[in-house]
Amino acid sequence: MNNELFEEIINNINKNNGLTKKTSERLVNNLIIDKFALDNFSKQLNFIKDNFSICPICNYYQIKNECLICSDETRNQNVICVVASQLDVNNIEKINKYKGLYHVLGSEINLNKKRSPSEINFESLLSRIEKNTELILALNATFEGELTTNYIYQLTKNMNINITRIAKGIPMGGSLDYMDETTLESAFKNRKKYEV
Amino acid sequence: MNNELFEEIINNINKNNGLTKKTSERLVNNLIIDKFALDNFSKQLNFIKDNFSICPICNYYQIKNECLICSDETRNQNVICVVASQLDVNNIEKINKYKGLYHVLGSEINLNKKRSPSEINFESLLSRIEKNTELILALNATFEGELTTNYIYQLTKNMNINITRIAKGIPMGGSLDYMDETTLESAFKNRKKYEV
Repeated sequence: MNNELFEEIINNINKNNGLTKKTSERLVNNLIIDKFALDNFSKQLNFIKDNFSICPICNYYQIKNECLICSDETRNQNVICVVASQLDVNNIEKINKYKGLYHVLGSEINLNKKRSPSEINFESLLSRIEKNTELILALNATFEGELTTNYIYQLTKNMNINITRIAKGIPMGGSLDYMDETTLESAFKNRKKYEV
Repeated sequence: MNNELFEEIINNINKNNGLTKKTSERLVNNLIIDKFALDNFSKQLNFIKDNFSICPICNYYQIKNECLICSDETRNQNVICVVASQLDVNNIEKINKYKGLYHVLGSEINLNKKRSPSEINFESLLSRIEKNTELILALNATFEGELTTNYIYQLTKNMNINITRIAKGIPMGGSLDYMDETTLESAFKNRKKYEV
Protein backbone atom coordinates (compact mmCIF):
# COMPACT_ATOMS: atom_id res chain seq x y z
CA MET A 1 0.00 0.00 0.00
CA ASN A 2 1.26 3.43 -0.93
CA ASN A 3 1.17 4.82 2.58
CA GLU A 4 4.52 6.61 2.48
CA LEU A 5 2.87 10.03 2.42
CA PHE A 6 1.13 9.31 5.69
CA GLU A 7 4.39 8.05 7.23
CA GLU A 8 6.22 11.12 5.98
CA ILE A 9 3.73 13.48 7.61
CA ILE A 10 3.98 11.56 10.88
CA ASN A 11 7.77 11.72 10.80
CA ASN A 12 7.62 15.46 10.18
CA ILE A 13 5.11 16.09 12.98
CA ASN A 14 7.03 13.74 15.26
CA LYS A 15 10.09 16.03 15.16
CA ASN A 16 8.33 18.25 17.70
CA ASN A 17 9.33 17.99 21.33
CA GLY A 18 7.02 15.95 23.49
CA LEU A 19 5.33 13.99 20.71
CA THR A 20 5.87 10.27 20.51
CA LYS A 21 5.45 8.41 17.24
CA LYS A 22 2.13 6.97 18.46
CA THR A 23 0.84 10.39 19.55
CA SER A 24 1.82 11.87 16.18
CA GLU A 25 0.02 9.05 14.36
CA ARG A 26 -3.18 9.59 16.34
CA LEU A 27 -2.95 13.36 15.87
CA VAL A 28 -2.42 13.13 12.10
CA ASN A 29 -5.25 10.60 11.80
CA ASN A 30 -7.51 12.98 13.69
CA LEU A 31 -6.54 15.86 11.41
CA ILE A 32 -7.27 13.78 8.31
CA ILE A 33 -10.69 12.53 9.37
CA ASP A 34 -11.86 15.76 11.02
CA LYS A 35 -11.71 18.84 8.77
CA PHE A 36 -12.92 21.03 11.61
CA ALA A 37 -10.01 19.94 13.81
CA LEU A 38 -7.61 20.61 10.93
CA ASP A 39 -8.91 24.14 10.40
CA ASN A 40 -8.83 24.82 14.12
CA PHE A 41 -5.23 23.62 14.34
CA SER A 42 -4.25 25.85 11.41
CA LYS A 43 -5.91 28.77 13.14
CA GLN A 44 -3.91 28.14 16.33
CA LEU A 45 -0.66 28.01 14.37
CA ASN A 46 -1.46 31.30 12.63
CA PHE A 47 -2.36 32.85 15.95
CA ILE A 48 0.98 31.77 17.44
CA LYS A 49 2.82 33.09 14.39
CA ASP A 50 1.08 36.47 14.51
CA ASN A 51 1.22 37.05 18.25
CA PHE A 52 3.95 35.12 20.02
CA SER A 53 7.67 35.71 20.02
CA ILE A 54 10.57 35.26 22.43
CA CYS A 55 11.66 38.01 24.81
CA PRO A 56 15.21 39.11 23.89
CA ILE A 57 15.96 39.72 27.58
CA CYS A 58 14.64 36.67 29.46
CA ASN A 59 13.71 34.26 26.61
CA TYR A 60 10.15 33.83 27.88
CA TYR A 61 7.10 34.39 25.68
CA GLN A 62 6.27 37.80 24.32
CA ILE A 63 2.75 38.54 23.15
CA LYS A 64 2.59 41.36 20.62
CA ASN A 65 6.25 42.06 21.42
CA GLU A 66 5.60 42.53 25.12
CA CYS A 67 7.16 40.03 27.53
CA LEU A 68 4.59 38.57 29.91
CA ILE A 69 7.14 38.72 32.74
CA CYS A 70 9.58 41.58 32.05
CA SER A 71 6.82 44.07 31.22
CA ASP A 72 5.19 43.54 34.62
CA GLU A 73 6.52 46.41 36.74
CA THR A 74 5.04 45.02 39.96
CA ARG A 75 7.60 42.22 39.88
CA ASN A 76 10.79 42.44 41.89
CA GLN A 77 13.39 43.48 39.31
CA ASN A 78 16.28 42.41 41.55
CA VAL A 79 15.52 38.68 41.64
CA ILE A 80 16.21 36.48 38.62
CA CYS A 81 15.17 32.85 38.64
CA VAL A 82 17.21 30.79 36.16
CA VAL A 83 15.32 27.89 34.55
CA ALA A 84 15.95 25.54 31.64
CA SER A 85 12.73 25.97 29.67
CA GLN A 86 9.74 28.26 29.21
CA LEU A 87 7.65 25.34 30.48
CA ASP A 88 9.37 25.67 33.86
CA VAL A 89 8.26 29.30 34.04
CA ASN A 90 4.68 28.20 33.33
CA ASN A 91 4.89 25.68 36.13
CA ILE A 92 6.41 28.09 38.67
CA GLU A 93 3.83 30.74 37.75
CA LYS A 94 1.08 28.26 38.61
CA ILE A 95 2.04 28.32 42.31
CA ASN A 96 1.58 32.10 42.16
CA LYS A 97 4.16 32.79 44.88
CA TYR A 98 7.29 33.88 43.03
CA LYS A 99 7.21 37.54 42.03
CA GLY A 100 10.66 38.12 40.55
CA LEU A 101 11.97 37.86 37.00
CA TYR A 102 13.15 34.81 35.06
CA HIS A 103 15.98 33.83 32.79
CA VAL A 104 15.22 30.91 30.46
CA LEU A 105 18.41 29.20 29.31
CA GLY A 106 16.57 27.18 26.64
CA SER A 107 18.67 24.14 27.43
CA GLU A 108 21.01 22.68 30.02
CA ILE A 109 24.59 21.63 29.44
CA ASN A 110 24.33 18.11 28.03
CA LEU A 111 27.50 16.50 26.78
CA ASN A 112 25.65 13.46 25.39
CA LYS A 113 23.57 15.70 23.18
CA LYS A 114 26.65 17.80 22.34
CA ARG A 115 25.34 20.84 24.17
CA SER A 116 28.52 22.29 25.63
CA PRO A 117 28.54 25.53 27.67
CA SER A 118 29.53 27.46 24.55
CA GLU A 119 26.22 26.49 22.88
CA ILE A 120 24.20 28.13 25.66
CA ASN A 121 23.93 31.88 25.86
CA PHE A 122 25.18 32.51 29.41
CA GLU A 123 26.40 35.97 28.34
CA SER A 124 22.86 37.34 28.28
CA LEU A 125 22.35 36.10 31.85
CA LEU A 126 25.60 37.67 33.05
CA SER A 127 24.73 40.98 31.38
CA ARG A 128 21.55 41.18 33.50
CA ILE A 129 23.32 40.79 36.84
CA GLU A 130 23.74 43.95 38.87
CA LYS A 131 25.23 44.43 42.31
CA ASN A 132 21.97 43.88 44.21
CA THR A 133 20.71 40.98 42.07
CA GLU A 134 19.61 37.73 43.72
CA LEU A 135 20.04 34.72 41.46
CA ILE A 136 17.78 31.73 42.17
CA LEU A 137 19.01 28.62 40.37
CA ALA A 138 16.00 26.43 39.57
CA LEU A 139 17.35 23.90 37.09
CA ASN A 140 16.31 20.27 36.93
CA ALA A 141 17.50 17.88 39.64
CA THR A 142 19.28 15.79 37.02
CA PHE A 143 22.93 15.32 36.12
CA GLU A 144 22.60 17.97 33.40
CA GLY A 145 20.83 20.35 35.77
CA GLU A 146 23.53 19.91 38.42
CA LEU A 147 26.26 20.48 35.84
CA THR A 148 24.61 23.67 34.61
CA THR A 149 23.88 24.92 38.13
CA ASN A 150 27.51 24.42 39.03
CA TYR A 151 28.68 26.11 35.82
CA ILE A 152 26.58 29.20 36.52
CA TYR A 153 27.82 29.25 40.10
CA GLN A 154 31.42 29.23 38.87
CA LEU A 155 30.66 32.07 36.45
CA THR A 156 29.01 34.25 39.08
CA LYS A 157 30.57 33.40 42.46
CA ASN A 158 33.02 36.32 42.32
CA MET A 159 30.32 38.86 41.46
CA ASN A 160 29.46 39.28 45.11
CA ILE A 161 25.76 38.66 44.61
CA ASN A 162 23.28 36.50 46.48
CA ILE A 163 23.02 33.08 44.80
CA THR A 164 20.51 30.51 46.02
CA ARG A 165 19.13 27.29 44.64
CA ILE A 166 15.74 25.69 45.15
CA ALA A 167 15.56 22.95 47.80
CA LYS A 168 16.02 19.30 47.02
CA GLY A 169 14.11 16.87 49.20
CA ILE A 170 11.16 14.52 49.40
CA PRO A 171 8.40 15.61 47.01
CA MET A 172 4.86 15.99 48.36
CA GLY A 173 3.18 12.59 48.47
CA GLY A 174 6.53 10.79 48.34
CA SER A 175 6.99 7.59 50.34
CA LEU A 176 10.32 7.37 52.13
CA ASP A 177 10.79 3.70 51.28
CA TYR A 178 10.52 4.44 47.55
CA MET A 179 12.93 7.41 47.64
CA ASP A 180 16.36 7.03 46.02
CA GLU A 181 19.48 7.53 48.12
CA THR A 182 20.52 10.88 46.64
CA THR A 183 17.10 12.40 47.32
CA LEU A 184 17.11 11.02 50.84
CA GLU A 185 20.61 12.34 51.47
CA SER A 186 19.61 15.82 50.21
CA ALA A 187 16.50 15.75 52.36
CA PHE A 188 18.55 15.02 55.50
CA LYS A 189 21.25 17.53 54.62
CA ASN A 190 18.68 20.27 53.97
CA ARG A 191 16.56 19.57 57.07
CA LYS A 192 14.99 22.65 58.70
CA LYS A 193 13.90 23.52 62.20
CA TYR A 194 10.36 22.26 62.74
CA GLU A 195 7.90 25.13 62.87
CA VAL A 196 4.16 24.88 63.44
CA MET B 1 0.52 37.07 34.62
CA ASN B 2 -1.58 37.38 31.49
CA ASN B 3 -1.03 33.85 30.29
CA GLU B 4 -4.60 33.10 29.29
CA LEU B 5 -3.76 33.21 25.60
CA PHE B 6 -1.23 30.43 26.04
CA GLU B 7 -3.74 28.37 28.04
CA GLU B 8 -6.39 28.97 25.40
CA ILE B 9 -4.15 27.69 22.61
CA ILE B 10 -3.29 24.62 24.67
CA ASN B 11 -6.95 23.89 25.34
CA ASN B 12 -7.72 24.21 21.64
CA ILE B 13 -4.85 21.95 20.58
CA ASN B 14 -5.69 19.54 23.39
CA LYS B 15 -9.09 18.81 21.81
CA ASN B 16 -7.32 16.51 19.36
CA ASN B 17 -7.44 12.79 19.96
CA GLY B 18 -4.35 11.32 21.53
CA LEU B 19 -2.93 14.54 22.96
CA THR B 20 -2.72 14.94 26.72
CA LYS B 21 -2.64 18.38 28.30
CA LYS B 22 1.09 17.99 29.03
CA THR B 23 1.85 16.90 25.47
CA SER B 24 -0.11 19.86 24.09
CA GLU B 25 1.78 22.23 26.37
CA ARG B 26 5.15 20.92 25.22
CA LEU B 27 4.05 21.01 21.59
CA VAL B 28 2.77 24.59 21.77
CA ASN B 29 5.93 25.67 23.60
CA ASN B 30 7.99 24.10 20.86
CA LEU B 31 5.98 25.87 18.16
CA ILE B 32 6.42 29.23 19.92
CA ILE B 33 10.17 28.98 20.42
CA ASP B 34 10.99 27.35 17.08
CA LYS B 35 9.70 29.26 14.03
CA PHE B 36 11.04 26.56 11.74
CA ALA B 37 8.98 23.91 13.52
CA LEU B 38 5.93 26.16 13.29
CA ASP B 39 6.32 26.65 9.54
CA ASN B 40 6.91 22.96 9.03
CA PHE B 41 3.79 22.10 11.00
CA SER B 42 1.74 24.56 8.92
CA LYS B 43 3.10 22.96 5.79
CA GLN B 44 2.03 19.50 6.96
CA LEU B 45 -1.48 20.76 7.72
CA ASN B 46 -1.77 22.33 4.28
CA PHE B 47 -0.51 19.15 2.70
CA ILE B 48 -3.13 17.11 4.54
CA LYS B 49 -5.83 19.58 3.52
CA ASP B 50 -4.84 19.53 -0.14
CA ASN B 51 -4.27 15.81 -0.53
CA PHE B 52 -6.09 13.69 2.02
CA SER B 53 -9.76 12.86 2.26
CA ILE B 54 -11.90 9.96 3.41
CA CYS B 55 -12.98 7.19 1.06
CA PRO B 56 -16.79 7.24 0.72
CA ILE B 57 -16.82 3.44 0.44
CA CYS B 58 -14.53 2.15 3.21
CA ASN B 59 -13.78 5.33 5.23
CA TYR B 60 -10.02 4.86 4.95
CA TYR B 61 -7.70 7.59 3.64
CA GLN B 62 -7.91 8.78 0.08
CA ILE B 63 -4.95 10.60 -1.45
CA LYS B 64 -5.94 12.85 -4.34
CA ASN B 65 -9.40 11.25 -4.19
CA GLU B 66 -8.06 7.74 -4.65
CA CYS B 67 -8.50 5.29 -1.79
CA LEU B 68 -5.24 3.62 -0.82
CA ILE B 69 -7.08 0.33 -0.31
CA CYS B 70 -10.14 0.24 -2.57
CA SER B 71 -8.21 1.41 -5.64
CA ASP B 72 -5.79 -1.52 -5.35
CA GLU B 73 -7.17 -4.12 -7.77
CA THR B 74 -4.77 -6.83 -6.62
CA ARG B 75 -6.66 -7.01 -3.32
CA ASN B 76 -9.29 -9.66 -2.75
CA GLN B 77 -12.55 -7.79 -3.30
CA ASN B 78 -14.59 -10.48 -1.55
CA VAL B 79 -13.08 -10.08 1.92
CA ILE B 80 -13.97 -7.10 4.09
CA CYS B 81 -12.23 -6.57 7.41
CA VAL B 82 -14.31 -4.40 9.77
CA VAL B 83 -12.27 -2.17 12.12
CA ALA B 84 -13.05 0.72 14.43
CA SER B 85 -10.49 3.27 13.24
CA GLN B 86 -8.20 4.14 10.33
CA LEU B 87 -5.33 3.59 12.79
CA ASP B 88 -6.31 -0.08 12.97
CA VAL B 89 -5.95 -0.35 9.19
CA ASN B 90 -2.46 1.19 9.46
CA ASN B 91 -1.52 -1.38 12.08
CA ILE B 92 -2.92 -4.36 10.16
CA GLU B 93 -1.20 -3.17 6.98
CA LYS B 94 2.13 -3.22 8.82
CA ILE B 95 2.03 -7.02 9.12
CA ASN B 96 1.64 -7.10 5.33
CA LYS B 97 -0.34 -10.36 5.33
CA TYR B 98 -3.95 -9.30 4.86
CA LYS B 99 -4.85 -8.63 1.25
CA GLY B 100 -8.59 -7.96 1.37
CA LEU B 101 -10.56 -4.74 1.77
CA TYR B 102 -11.51 -2.83 4.92
CA HIS B 103 -14.50 -1.13 6.41
CA VAL B 104 -13.70 1.56 8.99
CA LEU B 105 -16.65 2.16 11.30
CA GLY B 106 -15.08 5.32 12.75
CA SER B 107 -16.28 4.37 16.21
CA GLU B 108 -17.64 1.48 18.24
CA ILE B 109 -20.97 1.40 20.02
CA ASN B 110 -20.33 3.13 23.34
CA LEU B 111 -23.29 3.82 25.55
CA ASN B 112 -21.22 5.83 28.05
CA LYS B 113 -20.18 8.23 25.32
CA LYS B 114 -23.72 8.23 23.92
CA ARG B 115 -22.71 6.45 20.73
CA SER B 116 -25.70 4.24 20.07
CA PRO B 117 -25.92 1.96 17.00
CA SER B 118 -27.94 4.63 15.20
CA GLU B 119 -24.96 7.02 15.35
CA ILE B 120 -22.75 4.59 13.45
CA ASN B 121 -23.22 4.12 9.74
CA PHE B 122 -23.73 0.35 9.55
CA GLU B 123 -25.85 0.83 6.39
CA SER B 124 -22.77 1.51 4.28
CA LEU B 125 -21.23 -1.75 5.53
CA LEU B 126 -24.39 -3.74 4.75
CA SER B 127 -24.60 -2.21 1.27
CA ARG B 128 -21.15 -3.63 0.47
CA ILE B 129 -22.02 -7.21 1.37
CA GLU B 130 -22.62 -9.57 -1.54
CA LYS B 131 -23.37 -13.27 -1.54
CA ASN B 132 -19.73 -14.39 -1.63
CA THR B 133 -18.40 -11.79 0.83
CA GLU B 134 -16.33 -12.88 3.83
CA LEU B 135 -16.62 -10.52 6.76
CA ILE B 136 -13.71 -10.46 9.23
CA LEU B 137 -14.65 -8.69 12.45
CA ALA B 138 -11.51 -7.08 13.90
CA LEU B 139 -12.84 -4.72 16.55
CA ASN B 140 -11.14 -4.02 19.86
CA ALA B 141 -11.19 -6.72 22.57
CA THR B 142 -13.05 -4.34 24.89
CA PHE B 143 -16.62 -4.18 26.10
CA GLU B 144 -17.44 -1.70 23.33
CA GLY B 145 -15.71 -3.85 20.72
CA GLU B 146 -17.62 -6.96 21.85
CA LEU B 147 -20.91 -5.06 21.77
CA THR B 148 -20.25 -3.79 18.24
CA THR B 149 -19.04 -7.20 17.02
CA ASN B 150 -22.21 -8.79 18.35
CA TYR B 151 -24.36 -6.05 16.81
CA ILE B 152 -22.84 -6.56 13.36
CA TYR B 153 -23.23 -10.31 13.74
CA GLN B 154 -26.94 -9.86 14.49
CA LEU B 155 -27.32 -7.60 11.44
CA THR B 156 -25.60 -10.01 9.09
CA LYS B 157 -26.18 -13.55 10.39
CA ASN B 158 -29.14 -14.18 8.07
CA MET B 159 -27.28 -13.01 4.97
CA ASN B 160 -25.73 -16.42 4.51
CA ILE B 161 -22.18 -15.10 4.30
CA ASN B 162 -18.97 -16.23 5.94
CA ILE B 163 -18.41 -14.23 9.15
CA THR B 164 -15.20 -14.68 11.17
CA ARG B 165 -13.54 -12.74 13.95
CA ILE B 166 -9.86 -12.40 14.80
CA ALA B 167 -8.55 -14.68 17.54
CA LYS B 168 -8.42 -13.69 21.19
CA GLY B 169 -5.60 -15.18 23.23
CA ILE B 170 -2.26 -14.55 24.89
CA PRO B 171 -0.38 -11.74 23.10
CA MET B 172 3.21 -12.34 22.02
CA GLY B 173 5.54 -11.77 24.98
CA GLY B 174 2.70 -12.17 27.47
CA SER B 175 3.36 -13.93 30.78
CA LEU B 176 0.64 -16.34 31.81
CA ASP B 177 0.74 -15.27 35.45
CA TYR B 178 -0.01 -11.65 34.48
CA MET B 179 -2.89 -12.53 32.14
CA ASP B 180 -6.46 -11.64 33.19
CA GLU B 181 -9.04 -14.41 33.49
CA THR B 182 -11.06 -13.49 30.39
CA THR B 183 -7.97 -13.58 28.18
CA LEU B 184 -6.89 -16.88 29.69
CA GLU B 185 -10.35 -18.35 29.21
CA SER B 186 -10.39 -17.24 25.54
CA ALA B 187 -6.92 -18.66 25.03
CA PHE B 188 -8.01 -22.07 26.34
CA LYS B 189 -11.30 -22.06 24.47
CA ASN B 190 -9.58 -21.13 21.19
CA ARG B 191 -6.72 -23.62 21.56
CA LYS B 192 -5.50 -25.16 18.30
CA LYS B 193 -3.84 -28.42 17.39
CA TYR B 194 -0.10 -28.07 17.84
CA GLU B 195 1.67 -28.00 14.49
CA VAL B 196 5.40 -27.76 13.92
